[in-house]
Amino acid sequence: MKYGVLLVDGQPTLGTLIGDRWVDLGRATVDYHRMVEGNDVARPRDVGDLLRNGWMNRSSYRRIAEFVQRHGRLSDYALAETEQSFMLPWRPGKVIGIGRNFRAHVAEFDNKLPQEPVYFAKAPTSCVGPGESIIIGPDYGRVDYEGELGVVIGGRGRHVSVEGARALVAGYTLVNDVTARDVQRQDMADGNPWFRSKSADTFCPMGPVVVMAEVLEWPVLTPLETRVNGAVKQQSDTGRFIFSIAEVIAAITRFITLEPGDLISMGTPEGVGPLRDGDVVEVANPQIGVLRNPVRNSHPVAQS
Amino acid sequence: MKYGVLLVDGQPTLGTLIGDRWVDLGRATVDYHRMVEGNDVARPRDVGDLLRNGWMNRSSYRRIAEFVQRHGRLSDYALAETEQSFMLPWRPGKVIGIGRNFRAHVAEFDNKLPQEPVYFAKAPTSCVGPGESIIIGPDYGRVDYEGELGVVIGGRGRHVSVEGARALVAGYTLVNDVTARDVQRQDMADGNPWFRSKSADTFCPMGPVVVMAEVLEWPVLTPLETRVNGAVKQQSDTGRFIFSIAEVIAAITRFITLEPGDLISMGTPEGVGPLRDGDVVEVANPQIGVLRNPVRNSHPVAQS
Repeated sequence: MKYGVLLVDGQPTLGTLIGDRWVDLGRATVDYHRMVEGNDVARPRDVGDLLRNGWMNRSSYRRIAEFVQRHGRLSDYALAETEQSFMLPWRPGKVIGIGRNFRAHVAEFDNKLPQEPVYFAKAPTSCVGPGESIIIGPDYGRVDYEGELGVVIGGRGRHVSVEGARALVAGYTLVNDVTARDVQRQDMADGNPWFRSKSADTFCPMGPVVVMAEVLEWPVLTPLETRVNGAVKQQSDTGRFIFSIAEVIAAITRFITLEPGDLISMGTPEGVGPLRDGDVVEVANPQIGVLRNPVRNSHPVAQS
Repeated sequence: MKYGVLLVDGQPTLGTLIGDRWVDLGRATVDYHRMVEGNDVARPRDVGDLLRNGWMNRSSYRRIAEFVQRHGRLSDYALAETEQSFMLPWRPGKVIGIGRNFRAHVAEFDNKLPQEPVYFAKAPTSCVGPGESIIIGPDYGRVDYEGELGVVIGGRGRHVSVEGARALVAGYTLVNDVTARDVQRQDMADGNPWFRSKSADTFCPMGPVVVMAEVLEWPVLTPLETRVNGAVKQQSDTGRFIFSIAEVIAAITRFITLEPGDLISMGTPEGVGPLRDGDVVEVANPQIGVLRNPVRNSHPVAQS
C-alpha cells in the first residue's frame, strides 16, 4: 500500500502499487466513481488530493484495487515506471520539523535534553522530490543532511490526545531535513528564529513514496539510515525517539490545528554532517525505499 | 482599488470596490471573460485566486470596472455589504513575519538591533479574518497584540534585488501578529524556534481588505495604529522600519522563493502589550481600514 507521483511520458501521474505493478490511480479513481458509484469526481493529481479527499486508507485502497483487477484489466491501468521516475509526492500545507528528538543527536551538539517536543516550520517551497538537487548557495556556510521519518497527516485535529493521535496519521515517508548549520548556530546564538536555516529552496527532499499507515506497526519501530556517496553516516531507528509520534502530535495540536496534507518530520539521529558539491545523499528505510538526492553548489546568481 | 471577501446571503463572495460600491468580482470576472474575451475562466473565489492568476493590477481592475459600468449594469453586480461582513481575504501559502523592525520596539524588549532582517514563519492555519475571535488557551501565558502592515505577494521570485522587489508586491493589508510572549521568551532562552508562539490557531488576524500596491506610494510611508478597547496602544508609521519592504524581500529571497499568495508581515512598532478575555483589538490604517477582533479565553478542552 504505497503511493507516489511518477513521471510517465513526461507527465506527473499519481500511482499506487497493486501487487507488483504501479497503476494510474488518478484515472482509476475517476473511472471507479463513474462506473461503480455513478458519480463524477475530480481526478486526484497527487498524494495531497488523496489526503484531502480521505482516500488514503485500507477500504479506499481495496475498492480501487478490486476495480482495477476485475476482468483482468490491470494492464489497462499499469504504468511504465523506472526507479528514477518518482517525483515529489505532494507539496504539504505545513511542514513541521522536530528538533532534538534523539538523545545521541542532542549530545553531539551539546544541547539540553528537551522537556517537551521542540518544533519548527520548514517553508513548503523548500520541498523537492527524489532525484532533485539539493542546492547550496554561495553564502550558506555548512549545510547538513538530516535523515528523518516523515509522518503524513490525513486527519484534522486540535487538542489531540496521545491516545487519539494515531487517527490523524495516514502514512509515512522519508524526509531529508537539510539545515544550513552555520546560519542556524548564529541565529540561535542571537535568539533568532530557526526558519531560514531550515527553509531554503530544495532543503526538504521527501519521498520517494508514501506508505499507508497500516504498513508500519504502532508505535512505529522501523530503521533509518542515511548514506553519503554510499558511506553510512546515520543508522538508528524510530524506537529511539525521545518523543513518540503520538506525543509530538499532542504537543503541536496544543497550539496548532493539523490538517490533511500536513507533514511532520520526526527529527534526526546522531551522525549529521556536511554536504558538498557533487555528493549524493540517501535516506533509506526498508518499507519506504530510498530517497536519493544529488548535491550541488549554485552558481553565483545575477540579481533580477 | 480594494479587494475583499464579503459574506453575502451567507456565502463568502469575492468583491472589489468600484466607485463607492462593492461588486461581485468573481461573477464579473467570469462574465467579462465569456462576453468580451470569449473564453471560460474558473471563478476566482478569494484574493489568493486573483494573485495566482495575476489579476490584481491596474489593467485587470480597469477592464473589469469598465465591463461592470458599461450599459449602466453596475447595479447587476453590486453587493449588499455592511462593515461587519468582511471575512479572511485568503489563506496565504506562507506567512513570514519580520521581527525587530522598529528601533523603539527592539528597545522595549532589550533586544539587539539586527544587522539584517529577522524573519520567522507563522502557520497559515493561524489566519483568521476581521471579526473572528483571537482565542487564548488556558496554558498560553501572556498573549500580545502586534499591529503590522502586511505585504501581499503577487509575483514569484528568488534572489530578488532591492531594486527589483517592488515588482513582487501586489498589495497591502493589515496583520495582527499575535504572539504568546511567555512561550516565546522561554523558547528564545532555550535556543528553541519561535514557531509555536507565533502560530497558534487565530494568532494571525488579517484584513479587512487588500489594497492594490498602487494605492500606497513607494517606498511605503503610511501610519499604523493599534487600539485595545478604543485606547491607542501603538502609533507609528512605516517610515520607521529598520529594514524596508524591498530590503526584507531581498533578504528572504536569498534563501526562499516567494510566490503569489504569500504574505509578509513587516514587524510591529513599540507599545505591544497583553490581550485579555473580552478585549477588542483594532489595527488601523487610513487606506486599508480597521482590522477589528475580539479576544476570548478558550474553555478548558476535552481531549479527543
